[in-house]
Amino acid sequence: MRYLTAGESHGEAITGILEGVPANLEINPKDINRELTRRQGGYGRGGRMKIENDLIDILSGIRGGKTLGSPITLQIKNDDWENWREVLAPFGDCGYDQDEVKIKKEDKIKRVEPKVTKPRPGHADLAGALKYNQDDLRNILERASARETAIRVAIGAIAKVLLKELGIEVTSHVIQLGSVALEGYQTDFDKIKTKSAQSQVRCVDEDVTKKMIAEIDDCKEKGDSLGGIFEIRTTKLPVGLGGHVQWDRKLDGQLAQVLMSIQAIKGVEVGLGFEAAKQPGSQVHDPIFYDEQFFRESNNAGGIEGGMSNGEPVVIKAAMKPIPTLYQPLSSVDLETKEEFKASVERSDVTAVPAASVVGESVVAFELAKACLEKFGGDSIEEIKDNYNNYLEMLEQR
Amino acid sequence: MRYLTAGESHGEAITGILEGVPANLEINPKDINRELTRRQGGYGRGGRMKIENDLIDILSGIRGGKTLGSPITLQIKNDDWENWREVLAPFGDCGYDQDEVKIKKEDKIKRVEPKVTKPRPGHADLAGALKYNQDDLRNILERASARETAIRVAIGAIAKVLLKELGIEVTSHVIQLGSVALEGYQTDFDKIKTKSAQSQVRCVDEDVTKKMIAEIDDCKEKGDSLGGIFEIRTTKLPVGLGGHVQWDRKLDGQLAQVLMSIQAIKGVEVGLGFEAAKQPGSQVHDPIFYDEQFFRESNNAGGIEGGMSNGEPVVIKAAMKPIPTLYQPLSSVDLETKEEFKASVERSDVTAVPAASVVGESVVAFELAKACLEKFGGDSIEEIKDNYNNYLEMLEQR
Amino acid sequence: MRYLTAGESHGEAITGILEGVPANLEINPKDINRELTRRQGGYGRGGRMKIENDLIDILSGIRGGKTLGSPITLQIKNDDWENWREVLAPFGDCGYDQDEVKIKKEDKIKRVEPKVTKPRPGHADLAGALKYNQDDLRNILERASARETAIRVAIGAIAKVLLKELGIEVTSHVIQLGSVALEGYQTDFDKIKTKSAQSQVRCVDEDVTKKMIAEIDDCKEKGDSLGGIFEIRTTKLPVGLGGHVQWDRKLDGQLAQVLMSIQAIKGVEVGLGFEAAKQPGSQVHDPIFYDEQFFRESNNAGGIEGGMSNGEPVVIKAAMKPIPTLYQPLSSVDLETKEEFKASVERSDVTAVPAASVVGESVVAFELAKACLEKFGGDSIEEIKDNYNNYLEMLEQR
Amino acid sequence: MRYLTAGESHGEAITGILEGVPANLEINPKDINRELTRRQGGYGRGGRMKIENDLIDILSGIRGGKTLGSPITLQIKNDDWENWREVLAPFGDCGYDQDEVKIKKEDKIKRVEPKVTKPRPGHADLAGALKYNQDDLRNILERASARETAIRVAIGAIAKVLLKELGIEVTSHVIQLGSVALEGYQTDFDKIKTKSAQSQVRCVDEDVTKKMIAEIDDCKEKGDSLGGIFEIRTTKLPVGLGGHVQWDRKLDGQLAQVLMSIQAIKGVEVGLGFEAAKQPGSQVHDPIFYDEQFFRESNNAGGIEGGMSNGEPVVIKAAMKPIPTLYQPLSSVDLETKEEFKASVERSDVTAVPAASVVGESVVAFELAKACLEKFGGDSIEEIKDNYNNYLEMLEQR
Repeated sequence: MRYLTAGESHGEAITGILEGVPANLEINPKDINRELTRRQGGYGRGGRMKIENDLIDILSGIRGGKTLGSPITLQIKNDDWENWREVLAPFGDCGYDQDEVKIKKEDKIKRVEPKVTKPRPGHADLAGALKYNQDDLRNILERASARETAIRVAIGAIAKVLLKELGIEVTSHVIQLGSVALEGYQTDFDKIKTKSAQSQVRCVDEDVTKKMIAEIDDCKEKGDSLGGIFEIRTTKLPVGLGGHVQWDRKLDGQLAQVLMSIQAIKGVEVGLGFEAAKQPGSQVHDPIFYDEQFFRESNNAGGIEGGMSNGEPVVIKAAMKPIPTLYQPLSSVDLETKEEFKASVERSDVTAVPAASVVGESVVAFELAKACLEKFGGDSIEEIKDNYNNYLEMLEQR
Repeated sequence: MRYLTAGESHGEAITGILEGVPANLEINPKDINRELTRRQGGYGRGGRMKIENDLIDILSGIRGGKTLGSPITLQIKNDDWENWREVLAPFGDCGYDQDEVKIKKEDKIKRVEPKVTKPRPGHADLAGALKYNQDDLRNILERASARETAIRVAIGAIAKVLLKELGIEVTSHVIQLGSVALEGYQTDFDKIKTKSAQSQVRCVDEDVTKKMIAEIDDCKEKGDSLGGIFEIRTTKLPVGLGGHVQWDRKLDGQLAQVLMSIQAIKGVEVGLGFEAAKQPGSQVHDPIFYDEQFFRESNNAGGIEGGMSNGEPVVIKAAMKPIPTLYQPLSSVDLETKEEFKASVERSDVTAVPAASVVGESVVAFELAKACLEKFGGDSIEEIKDNYNNYLEMLEQR
Repeated sequence: MRYLTAGESHGEAITGILEGVPANLEINPKDINRELTRRQGGYGRGGRMKIENDLIDILSGIRGGKTLGSPITLQIKNDDWENWREVLAPFGDCGYDQDEVKIKKEDKIKRVEPKVTKPRPGHADLAGALKYNQDDLRNILERASARETAIRVAIGAIAKVLLKELGIEVTSHVIQLGSVALEGYQTDFDKIKTKSAQSQVRCVDEDVTKKMIAEIDDCKEKGDSLGGIFEIRTTKLPVGLGGHVQWDRKLDGQLAQVLMSIQAIKGVEVGLGFEAAKQPGSQVHDPIFYDEQFFRESNNAGGIEGGMSNGEPVVIKAAMKPIPTLYQPLSSVDLETKEEFKASVERSDVTAVPAASVVGESVVAFELAKACLEKFGGDSIEEIKDNYNNYLEMLEQR
Repeated sequence: MRYLTAGESHGEAITGILEGVPANLEINPKDINRELTRRQGGYGRGGRMKIENDLIDILSGIRGGKTLGSPITLQIKNDDWENWREVLAPFGDCGYDQDEVKIKKEDKIKRVEPKVTKPRPGHADLAGALKYNQDDLRNILERASARETAIRVAIGAIAKVLLKELGIEVTSHVIQLGSVALEGYQTDFDKIKTKSAQSQVRCVDEDVTKKMIAEIDDCKEKGDSLGGIFEIRTTKLPVGLGGHVQWDRKLDGQLAQVLMSIQAIKGVEVGLGFEAAKQPGSQVHDPIFYDEQFFRESNNAGGIEGGMSNGEPVVIKAAMKPIPTLYQPLSSVDLETKEEFKASVERSDVTAVPAASVVGESVVAFELAKACLEKFGGDSIEEIKDNYNNYLEMLEQR
């Protein structure tokens, strides 16, 4: 299973092609749209989220509500495209002769928008412009935008349906927002799933939620922005996803990559993470017990030992830096004139941590579904489930 | 550029094949052996490190001290193989007829060693045995061992030579060992490189080094083990390695994967990392300045914005859990009898954090060299340098 | 550079995501649409080609006629989708509650079309239905259809623009159609390009063209179908694309894969191909000459030696089997009833060899562009051309 | 499952790392060495084959005759290395100080061999030297040599053991050698396997064998060389290996790549191949029948339809060009002096087609084993067989 995504933030559409999904998986559009809505939520978002109301279009790979085994085209149209066509039309302003070149009439427009030449600290703007030899930063920032994660969430939604067929679920919650941290440690999957959904900041504790909202309000007033930490948690996984035999088969490495590849993520921890570095070994490792099957009473490992799932829930945290688009000005330099300026914006989100936690769930779900397909093989969900049950029976006989 | 490694910890040899190295790179065996020695150092190692004295064998891809562009076979022989042959011989105990089967005479031995059936918490033992359907844990633990990182260090040594041709260096230092943390923050590359080399625990501060050693001694007495945190740091990188256009092109994601795939690593941070999640945006993002070229005065981003190197040094931290092989017993269950036992060992390292920091350097060096080859192309070092200079000239004209 | 395609033959759209294209490449929509038109041509096509009039939609990755370095979404809408929606709607016939599920209203249709249960020999039908556990063959045949090649041609069109910047062109011509073969051997690139474009069957010889058309007419009358052989030819390539150092770096192997992966292709030859197997070595190998640079006077190798381009044009042939959808009945067995039936159709193409030759050009162009990017690196066309010129200068100094 | 190979032809060793082999596969060294011996056979080989007597060394991944699931290191030592060390030593002639640099003492030699500067037509020599910026052709020809296929044969031998567990076998025979072709068409797997083994040229017909040997003798006298065509054939494969859903999942494309990537192969055909292009559709496609399961009475498709195995044996042919190292001189130009010379050798093989057919078997076996692992998943041979049987039961219920 693999995917590619494409699309500029304000372009005509964000598109994903998801390849290698087994056949006969029942997909309800609600399964996808619900996730898109979850990603758009969260206290502290600016105006754009209210405009957006993402709905998925499926253009291939699903028929009558079932996957075909063929590649799935997922698309989210930009409702505001008519207003952006003039800026981003693929062949606008090209001067192609209308009669000679068969392109959509609407694309034959004259682009007037001035170039964007002011790179914002904390964004891809400057590095991208230099790497790709661009003098208009729009050519970088449109693709670098976290808008792209909408389609990763849609792809993750399909992965979640596949995982659910094997009895596996993934959820997330926000455990730190700016300076406000969740105290205590909630490990009950269902509580996390339910409580986080009830909080405007995806925090399982009502009091902490209030503090987080207060911090957001305060920060908004100051024209500043906030980052935070979220935790992804699965139900119990089958033992043996991933592998210890080669560096790139290790499940923790794969999960670290996909989480770190989410826009603005700067840190990833499995289980105890950095805390594990500070405690003696006798306090860190999870003793092994047996009662009809092997189990643990603690999960400091975060469900992964030796690069493999060990049968416990996978628990993994990610740290998001504050949104780099601020009302408060940051010093920068114009790409053309080399003159210093103060980078500021008129309208922005204060924080996107709750949204990012949903994106985190999605990319983790995708990796786990991929790991399941590698372990269990099969081209239809029936075949996969048969193979999966085979394996569970093998385990029971141990 | 890509590689595969192979080899059991006590097997005849650990082998790596490194593919895609450009031609005409001058390799001195010292370049590799010095790195192998650095990996074997560090206060707090047990007996085995003293036995091992790793030297690289090059079996292909280098001739007369220069790379050929062909795959490089790197091999580290097990000096103690004669004592292990009986346990691990590939065809020992097979009962093949000597006259019929042409195998090495010495392999025609009878294996007597009893099976290992006691899985150790914190190791790959249990998950691996269930995944691969093994009843002898030796079949898992030999490959899961961090001994494998020796060959990753050798591979990284070649990557470092390539990077050096482009003026790039990578170093590392230990910033936390158990409860002892380095206070203050050293950012001078040369100091880090020099000072860490003088410390038995790869810490740049002499006083902290002493405290760390005291903690190790104390821990050893208690029969416990220690983890820690190390930081990898490069000299200034060219802007534009990695890419923002697709999730798997992001340099931070790639680096997170390779670091997390090192045995016992449980967390990875780029730049400020988790700390960035707790501070307001105005304190986190690095203002942009210009003086003949773009630069920053801070590097909270750790040298990566939008999934690309931004021209500053890459700074990345990794957290290592304590070694899970302890004198202090951990509860576990026998794989066959299902009886509880106390997992303990008679001899072990207390900590391997200094060694892990060298491994971290190596895998980071490999990824950066790979990113350079993707960006600059070329099949000989002369061609790569020409292309690299091209790019630098393009940047200068901005 | 890589791509994924998606889309059912009669689905809403065929989509491709093309990733890794450098920035600043000038794309005229005509460059793509002309290739789509070429693919739809050719004497001997049935009715559907006349309905289709493929035009590309670019949904991302190109702005104002230039590539951005970001993924390009290419899409060809199905003009006839309204008539097919009832059959293929992703969520048709699912019984989802309209109020609860936000899906496009038009998709809330009842599917009435009966299942397709009669597998056609020579198609993916039977193997696909068994592999993917399907009882409706439409779920297989829609994706297996050669309709998918339209988007590979669009992708190849962009690859051709990239190659042209480096002075490389690719063309093709039909050298055998059923029993009619082109006698003599045309090696002039420009003549092949021009003459094949003037022929209804893409054959460079007018008399042979007439014979081929006559054979098609004759075959059509008999209700049979025809295959054929086409040849892909490039202008002179830079020496050293591909590589001899690892099996999967060999250019001939890569080209063989992409050609064999075109629907209905059953054979691939590089240069003399099978004929080379029958002649003595003294007649096969191309002597090396020098006049300011190395060159050959013959090209039996087809431009590839040791898995690398050798500086001569790449010449590669592919054999296409006759279209397996015939008026003449072929014996088969119903998937459900297991009753024998005669597979026949009322309307079909007689041959698609001229179209396939355009597809062949496209996939070869893609592979060569990819090989160029690997060899020359770079993220913008300016950088790539600089690097390319570097290499040419290095060669000149030899 | 994947692999990398490494090693120069006359280097210390040829090495392969084979990764992703499931655990608990029983490997007898005889299984590998028998294949190595088969590859070294064949009438018409020159002197070197008699010197070589390849035996495999397994350095990892197998213990007590069973695979561990970990990477397998396969190595073939060069028995003649002592004589070649002076020429190819990795660090010979480097002038490293013995005391400072810890390298093997024997490597501290002075290289005296003059550079090879005379590129041979038909070899990688010239293209490789220009690509990798080499002035000594030995730096190219050592790796480009077909000696490398020895390790691909060893890897294929392990793949064959895996396939055999699923009841699948692969064999091959020579059907054309120079101008001598096998008449008639043998389709009986067992006969092909047995008869080809009895022939010095791997031809199933005794009379044709004599003619081929006569042609070789004749050719040898003339100082010329011969190519030929071999056919790979499997026993019946399970339906559904490969896939129609994406271009790079197609089994025929994958097989074409691996065969074309064998040194000197210039053409590949599946089933009827080029002949299919010349016959009408009614004669080409294989009617479908049913008797407890679906089957065919013909196999013009060569066992692959729509990029998937269709349940019949896979039949695939490959054309090998004559060996380009001839007693008869071929014109060429010295790399340094640019002077023309006549490329000739004093000793060479006349033909290597029988050996190549064994290599062909091996790479096909690898691809099929890989396709099986993708379809059936699993980490131990027990798990794979369970999954495989699941699938067969699913098929039986159709």
